[in-house]
Amino acid sequence: MQIRLYHPQMLSLNSGIFLKDSQYHYLVRVMRLKVGSMVRLFNSTDGEFEGKIIDIQKDHLTLELINFISPPQQVRELTLYFAPIKNSNMSFIVQKATELGVTKIQPMITKHTMVVKANIGKLEMVAIEAAEQCKRLSIPEVLPIQTLEYALKNPLHTGPLIFCNENESSQALAQYLDQNKPQDVGIMIGPEGGFSQAEAAMIINSKGISVSLGKRILRAETAIIATLSVYQAIAGDWNISQ
Amino acid sequence: MQIRLYHPQMLSLNSGIFLKDSQYHYLVRVMRLKVGSMVRLFNSTDGEFEGKIIDIQKDHLTLELINFISPPQQVRELTLYFAPIKNSNMSFIVQKATELGVTKIQPMITKHTMVVKANIGKLEMVAIEAAEQCKRLSIPEVLPIQTLEYALKNPLHTGPLIFCNENESSQALAQYLDQNKPQDVGIMIGPEGGFSQAEAAMIINSKGISVSLGKRILRAETAIIATLSVYQAIAGDWNISQ
Repeated sequence: MQIRLYHPQMLSLNSGIFLKDSQYHYLVRVMRLKVGSMVRLFNSTDGEFEGKIIDIQKDHLTLELINFISPPQQVRELTLYFAPIKNSNMSFIVQKATELGVTKIQPMITKHTMVVKANIGKLEMVAIEAAEQCKRLSIPEVLPIQTLEYALKNPLHTGPLIFCNENESSQALAQYLDQNKPQDVGIMIGPEGGFSQAEAAMIINSKGISVSLGKRILRAETAIIATLSVYQAIAGDWNISQ
Repeated sequence: MQIRLYHPQMLSLNSGIFLKDSQYHYLVRVMRLKVGSMVRLFNSTDGEFEGKIIDIQKDHLTLELINFISPPQQVRELTLYFAPIKNSNMSFIVQKATELGVTKIQPMITKHTMVVKANIGKLEMVAIEAAEQCKRLSIPEVLPIQTLEYALKNPLHTGPLIFCNENESSQALAQYLDQNKPQDVGIMIGPEGGFSQAEAAMIINSKGISVSLGKRILRAETAIIATLSVYQAIAGDWNISQ
């Protein structure tokens, strides 16, 4: 198994990197790596490198970066706005959004939202771990929770806002994506129980593009994974020719 | 909140239906419904009806079906073959497959599969509950766990077999679906750690169509939800014009 760790500080070939605290603990105590073991380090500005452990001390270790694995990738912006349900669910959604290439995650308070606090520090750790495991170079940003109204007035995306609307019956998600191939989109998904009528009207007034995910009622977390996947498949970075 | 219950026995307008055991317990003890309350019943052959509770006894209740809600839907076959990881995960996957319109669920034993037993009875209950909540009329069939080899030799689908292959680099999932709009497909997804090389070769020899889900490595459950969603969006029943 290949170990990949996120390292926000500068990475360059033949340089030495000190690791301590939780990364040291993970490599030496949990994975029981020895001098000579290989570990990959990455970040979004320098790309990915392979390092060899050249020294292990009581509270830190030294890696020498000996192989250049991949250059930084051009980040394609993709924003997820969602209304959290339970705290355990938020970690799950951040993990899935990271695997599916989201760059900004905005939890929102809506009329039917149950959770109004989010532990951003914990969610950032979830995002880092998911990025390490899915071979992504960048870490999505998890923003402090805001109201739906604030999110609509202060958009994090520059392209269209895709509104997954269980009352939509004339425009399917794939149809819209295929015809428009929109970039830097926001994807907005409501809580269990949906948006209220007033909220749906507010989203459409803010130029939200109402799309349908079929006739079965999806749970919020299913709708999030489904919409992100269909976006990546049709208009995003799963397209091989790009 | 509208209560929908799966009722495999015959449903017809103006008939009386007796409910006992777990459905009786749920309606009377958990939901505390009274005489006069409305409950919906459905199955895949008769469709969906609304019934009124006309009598409650100590161990059963009687519903009279007074409104016809929707006729049976033509079932579009969709088979999911997957390699389970943990037992808790299997319930999650059955729930998501039900929401996403799968009709047959085949757990498989592969080289890297950890779980080799599946509690089919429990998984059937999960499928029924998910169908009740997502407004689906039919219940997917959960089959006893089989080896990959057996599944390939005894296919449950009649159309193409879509093989989600993390080593595929020339054909994207959406590209294949958009060009072929395949029907009655099998979707095959490996365990955490993927299929072995020999297994991948065996799937391709069995006419599996190798497709890519992008460059990030998805967890097994993410890949399952993603592929089913993209299938429904491009070639399945999320298409509004159909």
